[in-house]
Amino acid sequence: MAVEKTMDKLVALCKNRGFIFPGSDIYGGLANSWDYGPLGVEFKNNVKKAWWKKFVQESPYNVGVDCAILMNREVWVASGHVGGFSDPLMDCKECKTRFRADKLIEDHMTAQGAEVASADGWSNEQLKDYIEQHQIECPKCGKKNFTDIRKFNLMFKTFQGVTEDAKAEIYLRPETAQGIFVNFKAVQRSSRKKVPFGIAQIGKSFRNEITPGNFTFRTREFEQMELEFFCKPGTDMEWFNFWRDYCWNFLLNLGMTKENIRMRDHEQEELSFYSNATSDIEYLFPFGWGELWGIADRTDYDLTKHQEHSGQDMSYLDPTTNEKYVPYCIEPSLGADRVALAFLADAYEEQELEDGDVRNVLHLHPALAPYKAAILPLSKKLSEKADEVYSELRKKFNVEYDEAGSIGKRYRRQDEIGTPFCITVDFDTLEDNAVTVRDRDTMEQVRIKIEELDNYIAAKLEF
Amino acid sequence: MAVEKTMDKLVALCKNRGFIFPGSDIYGGLANSWDYGPLGVEFKNNVKKAWWKKFVQESPYNVGVDCAILMNREVWVASGHVGGFSDPLMDCKECKTRFRADKLIEDHMTAQGAEVASADGWSNEQLKDYIEQHQIECPKCGKKNFTDIRKFNLMFKTFQGVTEDAKAEIYLRPETAQGIFVNFKAVQRSSRKKVPFGIAQIGKSFRNEITPGNFTFRTREFEQMELEFFCKPGTDMEWFNFWRDYCWNFLLNLGMTKENIRMRDHEQEELSFYSNATSDIEYLFPFGWGELWGIADRTDYDLTKHQEHSGQDMSYLDPTTNEKYVPYCIEPSLGADRVALAFLADAYEEQELEDGDVRNVLHLHPALAPYKAAILPLSKKLSEKADEVYSELRKKFNVEYDEAGSIGKRYRRQDEIGTPFCITVDFDTLEDNAVTVRDRDTMEQVRIKIEELDNYIAAKLEF
Repeated sequence: MAVEKTMDKLVALCKNRGFIFPGSDIYGGLANSWDYGPLGVEFKNNVKKAWWKKFVQESPYNVGVDCAILMNREVWVASGHVGGFSDPLMDCKECKTRFRADKLIEDHMTAQGAEVASADGWSNEQLKDYIEQHQIECPKCGKKNFTDIRKFNLMFKTFQGVTEDAKAEIYLRPETAQGIFVNFKAVQRSSRKKVPFGIAQIGKSFRNEITPGNFTFRTREFEQMELEFFCKPGTDMEWFNFWRDYCWNFLLNLGMTKENIRMRDHEQEELSFYSNATSDIEYLFPFGWGELWGIADRTDYDLTKHQEHSGQDMSYLDPTTNEKYVPYCIEPSLGADRVALAFLADAYEEQELEDGDVRNVLHLHPALAPYKAAILPLSKKLSEKADEVYSELRKKFNVEYDEAGSIGKRYRRQDEIGTPFCITVDFDTLEDNAVTVRDRDTMEQVRIKIEELDNYIAAKLEF
Repeated sequence: MAVEKTMDKLVALCKNRGFIFPGSDIYGGLANSWDYGPLGVEFKNNVKKAWWKKFVQESPYNVGVDCAILMNREVWVASGHVGGFSDPLMDCKECKTRFRADKLIEDHMTAQGAEVASADGWSNEQLKDYIEQHQIECPKCGKKNFTDIRKFNLMFKTFQGVTEDAKAEIYLRPETAQGIFVNFKAVQRSSRKKVPFGIAQIGKSFRNEITPGNFTFRTREFEQMELEFFCKPGTDMEWFNFWRDYCWNFLLNLGMTKENIRMRDHEQEELSFYSNATSDIEYLFPFGWGELWGIADRTDYDLTKHQEHSGQDMSYLDPTTNEKYVPYCIEPSLGADRVALAFLADAYEEQELEDGDVRNVLHLHPALAPYKAAILPLSKKLSEKADEVYSELRKKFNVEYDEAGSIGKRYRRQDEIGTPFCITVDFDTLEDNAVTVRDRDTMEQVRIKIEELDNYIAAKLEF
């Protein structure tokens, strides 16, 4: 039997067990910033490794890149971020609270029971008119006295070089995608890849959001895992569907509960003008459905923009047909912190056992678990033998050693951090060179030869 | 026989083969910024993985963290970076070139044959006096007409939140170390670690250097691999020596040429006032000796500073002896980009073969090589069998498939990108289910059963 999971419980577990700490905590924190602790960094690295394995290493189509966070300002002029990457903000003149006008409208639409609640892409005037016509109130103080709406650019600005004049003004990248687009030709040329092929990247991005929140779901500094998949115009819908399914299966193969994810295909009127199709995979977090993965057919929009703005040729010459074209692009874009949070929330269970006892358990897929196994000597007299097992396994996997407290207490500690296998070294081990392996989820135990542990664990890590 | 290696050759190889591209290249670049291409990202990830394996996973002492780049401003006040992390800059009034006064003096000292050339920590006045007394000239135009020296802070500044008032002014971290120090208690508590133990981190840092250069050796955006190892005061020199050796061996075990590295122990007068000992491991790059790894005994300086500034208790209570103290800290600090460059430079060889032919070869340790093996079908008729081998190996390792061009040409391509093993599928393979494996360095060939390839490659990856 499972007790209700709440964000509070998850946040507390993450802090107490070293998954995620509040950032700059000893100085009162910094907005909604977070630091990954000893278990968190292993877990998040495993999420990134799993993505890289499936989207780069095992894919015959894709290669990776790792581009700089700081880029030439012209990149963001071409991409439209300097001109258009902004939130429409306004203040309540009465209580001085600041709001995103579009969010206020969308919340109002939802409250009115609208099927599609979206004010995406509306002009300041459209937003203002809607608010006035529908007599929308300040959600904080209930008054209807707002300032005008101003566009606030979401990019973090900084200055490079030793003078602070306008020429040296640069931005922290708000997405990893543009690093891929500007390197499209260099990658294609050096890797001798033929279209269709994709370029994948994992890296930090920064957005100066007005309302970060929900733990690591929305933070100003976040890590993205993006693929830009280039294909011939006309084949794009086929590839869109291919990657849409691929992403969906990635989540299921890593153990995500099917009932907790859904695919939301965007309506025609929701699409950006350049997009042929967009789908979001959403996850049911304890705070409600939230966007996890956006898969978009971006046509030739990005490469064409860079071709126009840089004057460089961004087209591809098909070596067999001799056709020349600017490739279309399918973009599955995923937040590493966000999907990590989804895996954590999905795995968390406060479980009432048959004997009335309660245990916290993280049912993480072994490939994602911070520790693959914990070595538990039944007695301190067995430390030497246990240490042998530990030292051997440590060369292959991230494993834990714990000899403090009763065996039951040690099981509970490992359950709570998602360790899939507890390996008990007992006095029989000295005779039969075998250990007892307890499964985290079923709590069943099997006896396994020490020399077979490697393969036993390795097999469980596959997905 | 080896031909002279130059930075130009290395930079060209990196660009042509997809290791490292100039950043924002289609827009004319951005200062000295670089993007890792398909081979570069695999190679650099391997360097980071190797460090993490030896410094975290296989170390019984250390755990990892991954902290935010954006931190509360008070962190940098406490650490001294807001007050003191600056370069002394001055301009030549004649030719308008900007210089670092300390570097100018150090270059002058070296030219005069000084044993230790250091103006580290000098005041503006000391610097100015030295320049005047020694009649130092502008290296560009030869005049002696400099402006006053001003302190220029090296931290990149940005603004968080939706107003640009001073309160929201924050910095991009100039080092990963402080994220570790501010989390010292949270990590210790949640991981139940006992002193001595260490906290390791890999992540981006940013310094607004006036003179970035030498390819990826000095860049404004760079990635660090830092360990902060906490120990009991009095045991610090013992641990300093332990980690000093550990770092040295790390490089050798990954195949770095012993003649190309040297250990430089800082003289008493070079040490920061709080440091008990500091050593640098230097590498002989094609442009000369450069610092690779700094290993410093920082005593209790950092934790004490944060204790004073935050008002939080940073001491450790020894559970066995009941002693309470602020731990001392040993810091081995390494740049990921810099050590990657050293491994590349070390591995690069333009080799004249006995038959007069020349091949470019990267003698990278197999653990660091982007591809562990390349599958080469001897004929297109063997594609199906070769693809079988490729698909199987790809699940375990990053491997390449190449069927274009003569076998000799394909060998050369793989040599140049450091692939340690070329696996040729020939017509005999269809009979004996074996392949020919050619060694990159010795160019010798052995016949190996397909089912044994896994173990054969895995064994070569150990270090």
